[in-house]
Amino acid sequence: VDPALVELRQRLGEIDDLETAKSILDWDLAVWMPPGGETARASQLATLETVIHTRRTDERIGALLDELEPYAASLDPASDDACLLRVARRNWERARRVPTALAAELASAEADAYATWVRAREASDYAMFKPELSRMLDLKLRWVECFAPYDDPYDVLLDEYDEGLRATDVEAVFDVLRPALTELVDARAVAPGTGEDAFLHAPYPASAQEALGRELCERFGASWDAFRLDPTVHPFAVRFGQNDIRLTTAYEERGLSSLFSAMHECGHGLYEWGSALSLDRTPLAGGGSSSLHESQSRLWENLVGRSRPFWRWFYPRLQEVFPDQLGAVDLDCFYRAINRVERGFVRIDADETSYGLHIVLRFQLERQLVTGRLSVDDLPDAWNAGFRDLMGVDVPDDRHGVLQDVHWSVGLFGYFPTYLLGSVLAVQIWERLRRDLPDVDTQMERGDFSAIHTWLRDHLYALGRTLPPSETIARVAGGPIDPRPYLAYLAAKVA
Amino acid sequence: VDPALVELRQRLGEIDDLETAKSILDWDLAVWMPPGGETARASQLATLETVIHTRRTDERIGALLDELEPYAASLDPASDDACLLRVARRNWERARRVPTALAAELASAEADAYATWVRAREASDYAMFKPELSRMLDLKLRWVECFAPYDDPYDVLLDEYDEGLRATDVEAVFDVLRPALTELVDARAVAPGTGEDAFLHAPYPASAQEALGRELCERFGASWDAFRLDPTVHPFAVRFGQNDIRLTTAYEERGLSSLFSAMHECGHGLYEWGSALSLDRTPLAGGGSSSLHESQSRLWENLVGRSRPFWRWFYPRLQEVFPDQLGAVDLDCFYRAINRVERGFVRIDADETSYGLHIVLRFQLERQLVTGRLSVDDLPDAWNAGFRDLMGVDVPDDRHGVLQDVHWSVGLFGYFPTYLLGSVLAVQIWERLRRDLPDVDTQMERGDFSAIHTWLRDHLYALGRTLPPSETIARVAGGPIDPRPYLAYLAAKVA
Repeated sequence: VDPALVELRQRLGEIDDLETAKSILDWDLAVWMPPGGETARASQLATLETVIHTRRTDERIGALLDELEPYAASLDPASDDACLLRVARRNWERARRVPTALAAELASAEADAYATWVRAREASDYAMFKPELSRMLDLKLRWVECFAPYDDPYDVLLDEYDEGLRATDVEAVFDVLRPALTELVDARAVAPGTGEDAFLHAPYPASAQEALGRELCERFGASWDAFRLDPTVHPFAVRFGQNDIRLTTAYEERGLSSLFSAMHECGHGLYEWGSALSLDRTPLAGGGSSSLHESQSRLWENLVGRSRPFWRWFYPRLQEVFPDQLGAVDLDCFYRAINRVERGFVRIDADETSYGLHIVLRFQLERQLVTGRLSVDDLPDAWNAGFRDLMGVDVPDDRHGVLQDVHWSVGLFGYFPTYLLGSVLAVQIWERLRRDLPDVDTQMERGDFSAIHTWLRDHLYALGRTLPPSETIARVAGGPIDPRPYLAYLAAKVA
Repeated sequence: VDPALVELRQRLGEIDDLETAKSILDWDLAVWMPPGGETARASQLATLETVIHTRRTDERIGALLDELEPYAASLDPASDDACLLRVARRNWERARRVPTALAAELASAEADAYATWVRAREASDYAMFKPELSRMLDLKLRWVECFAPYDDPYDVLLDEYDEGLRATDVEAVFDVLRPALTELVDARAVAPGTGEDAFLHAPYPASAQEALGRELCERFGASWDAFRLDPTVHPFAVRFGQNDIRLTTAYEERGLSSLFSAMHECGHGLYEWGSALSLDRTPLAGGGSSSLHESQSRLWENLVGRSRPFWRWFYPRLQEVFPDQLGAVDLDCFYRAINRVERGFVRIDADETSYGLHIVLRFQLERQLVTGRLSVDDLPDAWNAGFRDLMGVDVPDDRHGVLQDVHWSVGLFGYFPTYLLGSVLAVQIWERLRRDLPDVDTQMERGDFSAIHTWLRDHLYALGRTLPPSETIARVAGGPIDPRPYLAYLAAKVA
């Protein structure tokens, strides 16, 4: 083996170790840290980011990559080594554009702004969050400038989560989705809180929800030898190693949203877990892009977890655990309730149909923020006006409006579109899976998800991030992203 | 301000950030990590240690310290800056002796050996643990060699936990304690499991124990804005920042040991929390030495938590929570049971009197291990023979013998003596406190610990590690370590 490759792998492995250490600090911040830890944590994260960024941008990595170019040129482009060299080159070149001080300041600001967001959301007080949001937006815009020249600043943000994705690509899909989703919502939506789904807003003890969430994760294939499920404010999933996957969920006092969130995060976790072993401790482990990642969370949450076959299996179990809340509710009524189209305020509680409009709103606002057409001062009004425009209802307060999502506090501008693109991809992938597994409904009806998990692992998860996202999508979905199957699926579901 | 001091503080602050990051990974490993995470975690810890050690040993720190020598010489030796320069010099010189590769290998071996110890203890299988223990001992001996020449290899180990403490100092104290404790045990001990304390071995639901442990921590002065209490296998406490203190405890299926362990760890936590704010993010924050640290855990666990005034206050509450187990047990009976002298096998469950003999055994075995007079192969036999010799009973299995403690798995050779020295110091400190707070018993009887906490903070905690341990001890205990008050206290207690 070429000693340059050995050294490069060693350096990338150490960067991966340190990035994971930072992830562990971020996870602890979101899951366990007492409020008093904020200041120290921001400083710890900034110092770690300084170390990581210094290593990422080390000239030696560039020299090794140059030295390995003839070797790279000799390889099958789909081989692990070729993919590693391609991704390492991209990561190195991107990191080199960003000054270490800015990277460290971003890490520290994320910790501060996250903590402030948690409090501001709790208090429904945008004014409390605004200074942190301003600072974060300024930092992200300075970060975007590092990548000049560019056609559109939003492209720079997208490229971080989805290599090669451009704002015009997102628009092309959203231009199809927005009118179609609006039409479906107009035709089918009921006002939140009306009618026959009061049982979905009843109290469900958190401990029972947690036990059921765990049951579902196990059934989907997660092993507690490699997974954890912990409580947080805004659910997420993260990988700390090939066999150390952390899921989080949030337990509300009312309703069963934690179950859908557990299935969603389990989808992310299974994807992270499924990377080929040979990719461990390299930048190739994990999901192929944010859109692909969201395709998997949305697939397990919705294509599986809101399907009729799934509930034919699981609903009796749910009734058994919650006889007071659900004993008198039949399966049809429950199924309709978890799938009915609502003009709700909160994205993560949204049905599949209105969900897309929540994303369209965020995409519009983000583009205006990063191009300077909208100020942080005017954001809540723009949110509320945009929401009224898309959904036809008035946002009651900022907690159910502009403060509901964690993303902007931690600098994730440009991330939201990947949720909707992921939902679209999920249906494309699911249709391919069904072609290969024609009796998947029967399997779900008996609570057997092993063939689904295996198919996804073999066709998608094992690839990790070896290939550019567009190639991974072509392989697993059989072609480029296409919103039509998604719209057909939704139309059939709410018919 | 001297720019050299600014730069030095910046560098030490970053080292502190990275050391804390490593502590967070260690804490997660012991509290939450799924078993699958072991390999990745060992690698993450080794990489972090490499980064830390490289920074600790940076020549620039030596140059800055040299540059600051005239400034240091001009200072009051008790000033924060003088203490900082003294401790920074010591840390730098010690770190410079250890090769980075050895430091990293130790960090990685600790993670591996800890995980193996957890499994081996569970299975009571010393053979499973032995290879990891051998490797760890070899690594520690290589580490000791870095500090040659020395009089006694054990001195090098002690000096890491207690600056300036020597094996002969420990022997001088233990030579007084061993015969006196043996005499007390011989005179007072009952066999474990005999007689009137069956209620201490009844089942107590973990969730109720946890709630009571939290109540006690709160009463002692811990705030959940700055503290957490989580479950683990072998309890410990760790500081992640001025206001981020993590306590852990273990919930057994039977008995109330988690309450004493929560009080013990709370003592550590209050000490860590009480450092003067000006010491935060410097090597001066935290406890003055391991013996001083243990004096505080033992003080809160025993001088407070096994005292009659304390239980006059808390016993009715305990009975209220556990009426089935304790409703028919009166306060006197309970007090006698938690204080009775036993020939038990497990150190952390030991009464105050026999506790010292558990430590004496470990000290003897450790000294033999590090001087090569005892091999890892022969350790279980030596443990069992030594235990029989000291306690007069046969160890039933390795889980209750040589495998019971976590320390050796994570390389903590030389740490055990500090528990007993801490117990001795706790009584010396407690006597000084009582002189200043003559009505402390009355305060405890009404569940008021605020004056105790304030006295300890003002007289000890605020000092952090500014002074050498011997000076801190002289200030807070009024003189050097002295086993006589401890023996008098025990004799009175078990009379």
